[in-house]
Amino acid sequence: MTTDGDTTVGALRQAVARFVDGREWWPFHTPKNLSMSIAIEAAELMERFQWLTAEEAQQASQVPAERSCIADELADVVIYCLSLSNALDLDVSSAVLGKLQINEHRYPADEFRGRFRRPERGKKV
Amino acid sequence: MTTDGDTTVGALRQAVARFVDGREWWPFHTPKNLSMSIAIEAAELMERFQWLTAEEAQQASQVPAERSCIADELADVVIYCLSLSNALDLDVSSAVLGKLQINEHRYPADEFRGRFRRPERGKKV
Amino acid sequence: MTTDGDTTVGALRQAVARFVDGREWWPFHTPKNLSMSIAIEAAELMERFQWLTAEEAQQASQVPAERSCIADELADVVIYCLSLSNALDLDVSSAVLGKLQINEHRYPADEFRGRFRRPERGKKV
Amino acid sequence: MTTDGDTTVGALRQAVARFVDGREWWPFHTPKNLSMSIAIEAAELMERFQWLTAEEAQQASQVPAERSCIADELADVVIYCLSLSNALDLDVSSAVLGKLQINEHRYPADEFRGRFRRPERGKKV
Repeated sequence: MTTDGDTTVGALRQAVARFVDGREWWPFHTPKNLSMSIAIEAAELMERFQWLTAEEAQQASQVPAERSCIADELADVVIYCLSLSNALDLDVSSAVLGKLQINEHRYPADEFRGRFRRPERGKKV
Repeated sequence: MTTDGDTTVGALRQAVARFVDGREWWPFHTPKNLSMSIAIEAAELMERFQWLTAEEAQQASQVPAERSCIADELADVVIYCLSLSNALDLDVSSAVLGKLQINEHRYPADEFRGRFRRPERGKKV
Repeated sequence: MTTDGDTTVGALRQAVARFVDGREWWPFHTPKNLSMSIAIEAAELMERFQWLTAEEAQQASQVPAERSCIADELADVVIYCLSLSNALDLDVSSAVLGKLQINEHRYPADEFRGRFRRPERGKKV
Repeated sequence: MTTDGDTTVGALRQAVARFVDGREWWPFHTPKNLSMSIAIEAAELMERFQWLTAEEAQQASQVPAERSCIADELADVVIYCLSLSNALDLDVSSAVLGKLQINEHRYPADEFRGRFRRPERGKKV
């Protein structure tokens, strides 16, 4: 069984590429359409939590049937992200690690510990 | 340098977890909030293509400065997806490969080759 | 001063049309692009509440400066909705009242009072 | 029959309020949840155009059955916008007209005619 510990991003990208290739769906998989698709699937993921309080959402996420729905919707978002990276030949891993490095500087741990806004910008979280 | 070919999904998940840990942001990273965050970043990715024709979007995606913006926005979506998988302890790789398998059956290559709708449902693509 | 009590939907649609006309933006205001724009502005509205608890969001919505930001983002969503109705010559009022009538039947008050799911589907809200 | 020409925004807001009242759905209609709902419905509207080219989307929008689906999805977005304005007691008309006035200054007709970016920012549209 595959798990995140031994599956490369590249292996997932290839699985997505094979699926799209098999249906000759590349003409539909333009950057513009794929960005819409990512947003559409993101909305379906949100729908799982739309009317739940934060606590209810947390609880629902522990129920096996609901977990499996959430995993499915998350997979849809990730699949389209990988298809966009295939369409544009972008390396996801360097994009992610590069962005985390930028964020390290943008959100210094000392200033943002336990808060999502700088203290001086007002509102304690 | 890291690339998708030799980076596991698990390694990216750990990098994201370290970032969130370092700021003690877990209380904010509830499933509900993260689903909103994924959708918000997906919208920022769409914004790169909002007013462009399909062709202009394709061309823009080849310009280095624009490619780097797109990679950045894509990274934001993926980072929140990985944070959600961390928050819920969901295995992204099995979710993705499992969903592709479901889609193999839902969209048989023979019926959907070059079309995103079944022929009988009308409208040729 | 204009208020919702004495402003017709048509008057708002005309104000939006004049703005778009003045810039000759119709070629950009295709149905596809406008649907993206509505979603992008909806995400900016969500951003106001992204990291807030339900209670914090409610409180923030009473602070004048924040209220004004929220009103601005809501206006952006509505403006693009009105531009889409202009582009497609769709009557918003009949669409809204028609949909509410459908929903009256789909969500009978007796079964859905205080719940967003039918009782028999399980989960008490 | 109601039309945009003789329907006030306030009348639509009241129709939405009656619907929500009848089901005692106010506890669900928090600002945070409604912002998610607007985004979710916006995504369903986008879905109508997801895989279509700009031209196909335009054509589809003229087909009666498809027009009616689009009107329905647009109505869903607008209904949640009106419910948010009810929940926060925000005047939609002044928000919209106020924002258009801001945009008049932000996007001077002379500089933005036929373009969505300032000429000096490069890229001719």
